[in-house]
Amino acid sequence: MNKKAVVLVSGGLDSATTLAMAKHQGYECYALSFNYGQRHAIEIKSANEVAKSVGALEHKVIQLVGLGDIGGSALTDASIEVPHQLSSENSSEIPLTYVPARNTVFLSLALGWAEVLDAEAIFIGVNAVDYSGYPDCRPEYIQAFQTMANLATKKGVEGGMIKVETPLIHLTKAEIIQQGISLGLDYSRTVSCYAPDELGYACGLCDSCVLRREGFAAAKLADPTRYSKG
Amino acid sequence: MNKKAVVLVSGGLDSATTLAMAKHQGYECYALSFNYGQRHAIEIKSANEVAKSVGALEHKVIQLVGLGDIGGSALTDASIEVPHQLSSENSSEIPLTYVPARNTVFLSLALGWAEVLDAEAIFIGVNAVDYSGYPDCRPEYIQAFQTMANLATKKGVEGGMIKVETPLIHLTKAEIIQQGISLGLDYSRTVSCYAPDELGYACGLCDSCVLRREGFAAAKLADPTRYSKG
Repeated sequence: MNKKAVVLVSGGLDSATTLAMAKHQGYECYALSFNYGQRHAIEIKSANEVAKSVGALEHKVIQLVGLGDIGGSALTDASIEVPHQLSSENSSEIPLTYVPARNTVFLSLALGWAEVLDAEAIFIGVNAVDYSGYPDCRPEYIQAFQTMANLATKKGVEGGMIKVETPLIHLTKAEIIQQGISLGLDYSRTVSCYAPDELGYACGLCDSCVLRREGFAAAKLADPTRYSKG
Repeated sequence: MNKKAVVLVSGGLDSATTLAMAKHQGYECYALSFNYGQRHAIEIKSANEVAKSVGALEHKVIQLVGLGDIGGSALTDASIEVPHQLSSENSSEIPLTYVPARNTVFLSLALGWAEVLDAEAIFIGVNAVDYSGYPDCRPEYIQAFQTMANLATKKGVEGGMIKVETPLIHLTKAEIIQQGISLGLDYSRTVSCYAPDELGYACGLCDSCVLRREGFAAAKLADPTRYSKG
């Protein structure tokens, strides 16, 4: 039987690369996305295209109804403006785009599915280099989640482990893009922008767009992103 | 300003008692329930009645659409029969009624809400005495969740803490019931049964009914539960 992995796929560049890497490592991949009232629902469509093109066996979308109105983040709360600059650069501040406990919620649901599938791993495309402002993207957070998961699950209690894999955690955006390209990934299917327009064009100005553009430039690779401005 | 707590309320006896205890400790209580395809949706109605009668400021129900078909438990998967005996007693086996990663998912969403509310605590009615078969009801699991939560949240990073409170963890069912009665709790509003009938009558035979009956008997208190059989 093939080894299985649940891979968190958001429709963005990082998680698409993570999925391609998991697949390349020989895992049978089960893609998992969330619809939680994020303002850019086009992500789900991108996630589905990415899952198909990389060859995931299944793509599951879990809808979290009632989470959106918890609010507290520019990504889910329409009353907070999405910041158009690198808010976390050269500062220890937590960006406005931080969603409360998001990775914890996503990893927890991935853990549940992994347990049912008898999967060996969960892959998540967190990165501690570019987004140091998010507390739940740090290696020490992932380590603590792993410890908790080992105590939470049947597999852990029985001496096994569902390993949380973070292959991008120490890579720069340019290195991530180089990895994806070398694995044949088509980045035109991915959406990174925090505020894409209705047709899916990226704004070119938000934190995420700026990092993506700089990544392609640093990797000396053509950027297939469709930008509406800038 | 009053101190705030998010309290996980399922509609059962344990979480109702936990809510009454949080309220008694002076917290402004925010009740949180989940609709995740559990077979006994009557729980949500009970949770709402309990939240109101104890005086929670708000009762939020988060619907997890797509989790139910992850399956893997007798409580969500209609093809697995609910066991009518104490499966965990005198054994280290994990009961069939175990829902994969359930407490981790619930606590994670409670953590997100607690962060937005700037709450000081999350209350969960886990118990390590009667249900030793569930890995995510053990003190070492809760401890590991706390460590992870401190690393996951803004509050944790800034030196604060959202404390996970488990006031029932070392109490017997009889002690839990005595606590609730002393705080004026009306247990007729709660539903413990794993397989209640359409009118909300408890089966009287499942693990949860048996523990509840024995709890009232040991506490020498009248059991207000409406049983359909037995």
